[in-house]
Amino acid sequence: MKHVYEYPRAALTVDCVVFGFDGGELKLLLIERGLAPFKGCWALPGGFVRVDETLDQAALRELEEETGLEKVFLEQLYTFSSVDRDPRERVISVAYYALTKLADHRTRAATDAADAQWFPIPDVPSLAFDHADILTTAIQRLRGKLRYEPIGFELLPAKFTLSQLQQLYEAVLGTELDKRNFRKKVLGFDLLIPLNETHREGAHRPAQLFRFDPVRYGKLKKKGFLFEL
Amino acid sequence: MKHVYEYPRAALTVDCVVFGFDGGELKLLLIERGLAPFKGCWALPGGFVRVDETLDQAALRELEEETGLEKVFLEQLYTFSSVDRDPRERVISVAYYALTKLADHRTRAATDAADAQWFPIPDVPSLAFDHADILTTAIQRLRGKLRYEPIGFELLPAKFTLSQLQQLYEAVLGTELDKRNFRKKVLGFDLLIPLNETHREGAHRPAQLFRFDPVRYGKLKKKGFLFEL
Repeated sequence: MKHVYEYPRAALTVDCVVFGFDGGELKLLLIERGLAPFKGCWALPGGFVRVDETLDQAALRELEEETGLEKVFLEQLYTFSSVDRDPRERVISVAYYALTKLADHRTRAATDAADAQWFPIPDVPSLAFDHADILTTAIQRLRGKLRYEPIGFELLPAKFTLSQLQQLYEAVLGTELDKRNFRKKVLGFDLLIPLNETHREGAHRPAQLFRFDPVRYGKLKKKGFLFEL
Repeated sequence: MKHVYEYPRAALTVDCVVFGFDGGELKLLLIERGLAPFKGCWALPGGFVRVDETLDQAALRELEEETGLEKVFLEQLYTFSSVDRDPRERVISVAYYALTKLADHRTRAATDAADAQWFPIPDVPSLAFDHADILTTAIQRLRGKLRYEPIGFELLPAKFTLSQLQQLYEAVLGTELDKRNFRKKVLGFDLLIPLNETHREGAHRPAQLFRFDPVRYGKLKKKGFLFEL
């Protein structure tokens, strides 16, 4: 069946920047394209939006179809519209980003993706289309948000050590933080609940485990609190 | 000429939330629709995106065509995609928002707008399509940004009094602020340059005029400064 319009129309896609944290490194979920253009190239998971679904629905559907990821928390990032961003024709893409705990998810390649794989951010290969620009925008947003919202906790396991929290912040911000200063600031927010449990990694001595206090955060947020590190 | 595609495609529009400040009130620029649907109804300025232009270009073009506003600083806000947001057919809209000094701009209605007019935010009439949702999103963004970036200065004349600055913050945040506390915080940022000029309004005694120091702000921002009030 053909669809006929009076004026030319751009095609519309969604692309998903999915960040995962494994306790040490920040990673990005990519698919290997099984079809032209950019066949065999790594790209953000995504695809064409159907006319009977919202953009959010399209992003969740494509992510599940291409990588097997389900029930991910996605947020709209930005809509990319450079005139020459797709060699096929005029395609405008609405980018989303998601934060996941890496341990939660097993991925599998499906539909038009030949492979799906997590890459540490410093090792991300060259990407199809303008996906490198989309990734840059997503990292900037993540860094900005991390400075005034406790979104980092989306990336951590429910129980975590202060070292893991610091590693996450260092991985996202791309910079080393002073351990003593970081701990003082983080504990000063009074947002972490210490648990009667410890975590031992390798030859290190056991470290205190914490969990995030969303109720306390909700109260602070209402007061106009800023989660700044 | 007809345009034929294998799959159905949504039409794509841009809509612009243009805020203006006149020294006392925060206002919104609306157009009266000259065509169906919602003919005679107030709406955000905007229109269909052409396939040979970016979204930014479309937003600037529509704003100029419909309201006469030119060279406005626009930023992309969010892309709205509820399936039933337009009674004609499937239309996805990329919303932009802009901040302007009201004194800078004269507006005129043009193309398919019957009228263009500034409304104080509390007096905004009921709006066409999902434009009330778009406006709500824009106000939330503006409030959020105002708390950690000095974007308020985009809305003020180049020279302003502390009362005007406070009125702007109160208008955007929708809440009254304590005068002494506000002044102390604002001056504490060291971002305002006092001028050898005063401004007299009505029967009040003349008030000191200030201007914003963008160089100092640039330096503070690099250090990771937060403009919090």
